[in-house]
Amino acid sequence: MTGAGEGGGEGASSLLPVAVDAMGGDRAPDEIVAGARLAAAELGRPVALVGRPQAIEAVEGGAGGLEVMAASEVIAMDEDPAQGVRRKKDSSLVRAAEAVRDGRASAMVSAGNTGATMASALLRMGRLPGVARPAIATPIPVPGSTPTVLIDAGANAECSPPWLVQFAQMGSAFARERFGLAEPRVGLLSVGEEPTKGNTLVKETHELLTRTPGIRFVGNVEGRSILSDAVDVVVTDGFTGNVALKTLEGSLRFLVNAVLGAFSSSEEAKRAAQVLLPALAPVVDELDPDSTGGAMLLGVDGVCIISHGSSSARAIVNAVRVAHDMVERGLVGALRDAVGNPVGSRR
Amino acid sequence: MTGAGEGGGEGASSLLPVAVDAMGGDRAPDEIVAGARLAAAELGRPVALVGRPQAIEAVEGGAGGLEVMAASEVIAMDEDPAQGVRRKKDSSLVRAAEAVRDGRASAMVSAGNTGATMASALLRMGRLPGVARPAIATPIPVPGSTPTVLIDAGANAECSPPWLVQFAQMGSAFARERFGLAEPRVGLLSVGEEPTKGNTLVKETHELLTRTPGIRFVGNVEGRSILSDAVDVVVTDGFTGNVALKTLEGSLRFLVNAVLGAFSSSEEAKRAAQVLLPALAPVVDELDPDSTGGAMLLGVDGVCIISHGSSSARAIVNAVRVAHDMVERGLVGALRDAVGNPVGSRR
Repeated sequence: MTGAGEGGGEGASSLLPVAVDAMGGDRAPDEIVAGARLAAAELGRPVALVGRPQAIEAVEGGAGGLEVMAASEVIAMDEDPAQGVRRKKDSSLVRAAEAVRDGRASAMVSAGNTGATMASALLRMGRLPGVARPAIATPIPVPGSTPTVLIDAGANAECSPPWLVQFAQMGSAFARERFGLAEPRVGLLSVGEEPTKGNTLVKETHELLTRTPGIRFVGNVEGRSILSDAVDVVVTDGFTGNVALKTLEGSLRFLVNAVLGAFSSSEEAKRAAQVLLPALAPVVDELDPDSTGGAMLLGVDGVCIISHGSSSARAIVNAVRVAHDMVERGLVGALRDAVGNPVGSRR
Repeated sequence: MTGAGEGGGEGASSLLPVAVDAMGGDRAPDEIVAGARLAAAELGRPVALVGRPQAIEAVEGGAGGLEVMAASEVIAMDEDPAQGVRRKKDSSLVRAAEAVRDGRASAMVSAGNTGATMASALLRMGRLPGVARPAIATPIPVPGSTPTVLIDAGANAECSPPWLVQFAQMGSAFARERFGLAEPRVGLLSVGEEPTKGNTLVKETHELLTRTPGIRFVGNVEGRSILSDAVDVVVTDGFTGNVALKTLEGSLRFLVNAVLGAFSSSEEAKRAAQVLLPALAPVVDELDPDSTGGAMLLGVDGVCIISHGSSSARAIVNAVRVAHDMVERGLVGALRDAVGNPVGSRR
């Protein structure tokens, strides 16, 4: 086992390329390939494209000198994830995960089928020892503050209290490595701040979290705290987390569209908007999912970034940057330590 | 039992006052009493204030000629709901619910402790026959379209599939009576549109809803559909519903504040904002929870409106208007029919 991102050996793995799934995403392969080339040029780090060589070369500008890892199959965006991964052994997603497993890539990035990305990473890289279930950590940008890490944002529709405790541990380690927070504040998503509020899962998890060492548990938080600087990590089951994430995205998009509509409602409004855009643009830019670098699957033995399905070239650049950073900072080793495995057990 | 809002007898109950809890809400009693007086004046309908007569008279303008139903106790906003209702039998909330039960009021409105409002209504008015659990229906304003009814928005943290089916039935009846929709489209809140997506509760409920007569089930919807015209009623358990509601409110407030901040960032920006406000104000007004008339507890034998804790006088006016409307339209009878009780079983 030579999985990248081990606690030691960062020097070696950081020279390995980040494997980018060229075939995954609503705008694949064009935006993905363009993003991969940009990432290599801007970051000066190796990037490999995984997918059909012909499709990659057919993109304007082609691979542009990047390594191409050939994969003849594609798992479609709406394909059944488990079936897709089982049947399409030569798919770009499966091959990307294998490249990380086999030490030919330091990390993988995909904007494709989320379920299939998770399944590929889980089946090919394997779980970290002691991890019950990998979970998706999604950084929610909070303009004027560090992002809030929402975990689990959709990997596990049904969870048990001990799993949520591990999500808290992994989310804390991620917030430390990703955003440099020394002691990230961890909140448990509920319907009121009192420990007695919530469903059975939340009440039992609350009790466990109050006596979990190594994390800074600040109690229950409500949905409105996600987009605030009140908390750094919000822990929840993957069903609630995904509903909250999509509700948040939908609300922001709705209001941004309403504002943009008002800005173009007349010639006079358009002129006025020109004055206001400089003050508004940074907020809108920060809220743009393309700027966050994507979500991350925590708990597998390697760095796996799950980008938004609608990822642009810019989103891929940010994802590759984050992937490299997380490899260099030894995220996987930090996660292994966070879930309480004896240090050195697999090194 | 002469509970208001029975399928028949609308003529009589519409002459009864709406009982407004004068002591409930962050801005009680001042804004509540002012709102009740305004409602009576603007709507020309009877309104009664429930609470401490001295506190009501101490408000500027006093009761202003409205009937006062004396209640010596107050259940605090953060008080344990069940305990509060059990111990404070002479509280404004309990007395308001009794007034509806005893046929002295047509409906009740409170901006106070939500749990205690539900408990008072449930214990004093009683459940409608056949209703497993009352649920909170919250209209989410969708500028440019009819509001989306979110049910359950927080009454039941833990739910079973048959309860959710009843929420769908009650939510449909409510959307029909409240917004005049002939065949409201009902969606089930999940993490993907496919019937196979979601947790066990959602998968089992989906199956039941596909064969529930009398509702127009359109399948699973995601969080982003709440603030859209894709669906009229969104069914979920009270935990997920409350998280979604607060996430939505928090996101909108965050972005509205960011926009307002940009609008006042400089003198030039302030002038530009003056040009844009006429186009933006209607959207912001519609999204204001004070304008929706409040949430409604469905499944109890009477009309019970749960207003936002921060309700202003304007919110109370809208709540009283909706309460009167729902009494006149026979909402309670419609709900009784919707959950499948034989017509006339209690008339």
